[in-house]
Amino acid sequence: MSETGSSFSETGSYTLAIDGMGGDGGPEVVVAGLAIAADRHPSARILLVGDEAKLSGLLSRHPRAAAICTILPAGSAIPMDMKPTAALRVRDSSMRLAMDAVAKGAAQGVVSAGNSGAMLALAKIVVKTLPGISRPAMAALSPTTRGDVVMLDLGANVSCDWRNLVEFAIMGEAFAKAVLGLPAPTIGLLNVGSEELKGDERLRQAAEVLRGSALARQFHGFVEGHDITAGTTDVVVTDGFTGNVALKTGEGALKMAFTLLRQVFTSSLLGRIGYLLVRPGLERMKEWLDPRRYNGAVFVGLNGVVVKSHGGTDAEGFAAAVDVAMDMVTHRFTDSIRDRLAHMEKLTSVKVTPDQQAVPAS
Amino acid sequence: MSETGSSFSETGSYTLAIDGMGGDGGPEVVVAGLAIAADRHPSARILLVGDEAKLSGLLSRHPRAAAICTILPAGSAIPMDMKPTAALRVRDSSMRLAMDAVAKGAAQGVVSAGNSGAMLALAKIVVKTLPGISRPAMAALSPTTRGDVVMLDLGANVSCDWRNLVEFAIMGEAFAKAVLGLPAPTIGLLNVGSEELKGDERLRQAAEVLRGSALARQFHGFVEGHDITAGTTDVVVTDGFTGNVALKTGEGALKMAFTLLRQVFTSSLLGRIGYLLVRPGLERMKEWLDPRRYNGAVFVGLNGVVVKSHGGTDAEGFAAAVDVAMDMVTHRFTDSIRDRLAHMEKLTSVKVTPDQQAVPAS
Repeated sequence: MSETGSSFSETGSYTLAIDGMGGDGGPEVVVAGLAIAADRHPSARILLVGDEAKLSGLLSRHPRAAAICTILPAGSAIPMDMKPTAALRVRDSSMRLAMDAVAKGAAQGVVSAGNSGAMLALAKIVVKTLPGISRPAMAALSPTTRGDVVMLDLGANVSCDWRNLVEFAIMGEAFAKAVLGLPAPTIGLLNVGSEELKGDERLRQAAEVLRGSALARQFHGFVEGHDITAGTTDVVVTDGFTGNVALKTGEGALKMAFTLLRQVFTSSLLGRIGYLLVRPGLERMKEWLDPRRYNGAVFVGLNGVVVKSHGGTDAEGFAAAVDVAMDMVTHRFTDSIRDRLAHMEKLTSVKVTPDQQAVPAS
Repeated sequence: MSETGSSFSETGSYTLAIDGMGGDGGPEVVVAGLAIAADRHPSARILLVGDEAKLSGLLSRHPRAAAICTILPAGSAIPMDMKPTAALRVRDSSMRLAMDAVAKGAAQGVVSAGNSGAMLALAKIVVKTLPGISRPAMAALSPTTRGDVVMLDLGANVSCDWRNLVEFAIMGEAFAKAVLGLPAPTIGLLNVGSEELKGDERLRQAAEVLRGSALARQFHGFVEGHDITAGTTDVVVTDGFTGNVALKTGEGALKMAFTLLRQVFTSSLLGRIGYLLVRPGLERMKEWLDPRRYNGAVFVGLNGVVVKSHGGTDAEGFAAAVDVAMDMVTHRFTDSIRDRLAHMEKLTSVKVTPDQQAVPAS
């Protein structure tokens, strides 16, 4: 069952299973987002999973969305605050049935704006982890002065060992290839200094393994917090705790900058005139940094594409998450990780000496 | 010896020992910084430690600095890349002699722009850790939309247990009182979500202990990355790895915002005119976010005030680090942590059950 997750027809038409009930805005936002997505991906097919009456009512108001959607009725929805263990016991939830569709091969990817913890738990159980990957990670794009950077893990794994970090590097590299279209993305390991001796044993071991791996030429070494937005590397690898804090801290800092800018432009008449003059440039800058543009975090390392939309996003943000899922599916992201893992088979035979130092197998 | 570190005369005159040789800019930047500091703290006395010939030559060109400085000759200087263990063996370094002055009570605080690792190691050995504190932490101010926030640890301890985090909360609270002048600063524990069950055991234990402590009313609970710049709490507590990454990520994001803004204002003639109109407001914003204004990280938990200036700062930045040291000394920061620890004595008798759950002693 799990093997069929990424097999799909060669006709160029891809199917995404969409959880119609997830997110703070519920089905209204999802269907409005699908209407936007339908324009961008007219040949996509959508399995829209959830409350049939509600969804068909909404689709009748969004004919563009209706044109690409088929409703898959689901008896229940996972509440945003339900614990993952409880969510696993609900067999007829829209989130579960959407995952089932991927596991059965009826869809190549799933998008949900619902409960993240439940989503990760269901993805592991239903879509299943790729052979050779011990734990899926959450990856997403983030803006830099030079383009976009892939960051992972963003919170799926609060604590990680060196093996997880190496796997994240492999998956992040495949992600950057699929979504950013880079032929040989560079990889940085997030640390508190760029010198080889900085950080903990876990980081030094991961770095040592990567230096001796097939990714050696793309591995840049350690990077620091400011390197994320500087675009020093195309991929930044870290544990889920640090990644989550870094992502939210960066977003918070940008939000502060915009708050202060608003004060500059509204506190005086000259400021207001100045605003009118620079407005087009400011709008472009705001658009570049718009969190909605970066909506759509991917649970990587699974037997299919699983995309988490922010729960509080709007239709535009949800459409961006659908874009990410389509990018991953059309670029055969899952297959690309699978290939990379086959080449990195040595990794699984890395020996760990008693003092926990990683020694790549010769 | 260590007990005298915070005892000082009641005449209102405080002495700081300044490492004259530290930092990328060397003695030139230090002395130029002291010239600025002399205007702000005319009654301060400075023990300027380092190469006598070089420092006296510089002082002769900065009469304002000379008026408050006495040179304490040192035979050597710690290079920026020397390992802490090696630095500890150099007995006549300017950094060492400055720390000695604090330990002997000849000065109440020390400021250096030198090698951080060496500084922390020397501070632990020479100035010594306060009784009741297991590890010193690095604390500094950071900008928010509502004022400044105290963040710690910023890198002194790459990994921490719950006890360290609780100690950081105690020290951060005292720091916020001394430097921000707040009567009852609020404290947040940095996590990947604000719900009680988020994060790892270490964080949940620290939160539980704080909720049952004398700081309970000031403890806000868990905060997330975006809460740092939102100013949700006055103090944000985290381990040194996460704190270092968060600080640098936030700085990086602001730098990106300014880079993009520069493009907005320089890419067209209208942009340039707009810039002229909003320039005063932008300058204020830039000043508010200026990393130099936040220069001066404090190693807290020691028997005296130890301030680390950024190695790459200029004279203005170095003067800001001197400001921080003066604030800490005049507000009797060390005594205030000592008092707080006495009130929190219960903390040291917290029981840890076999499953590592913290249970505050009744």
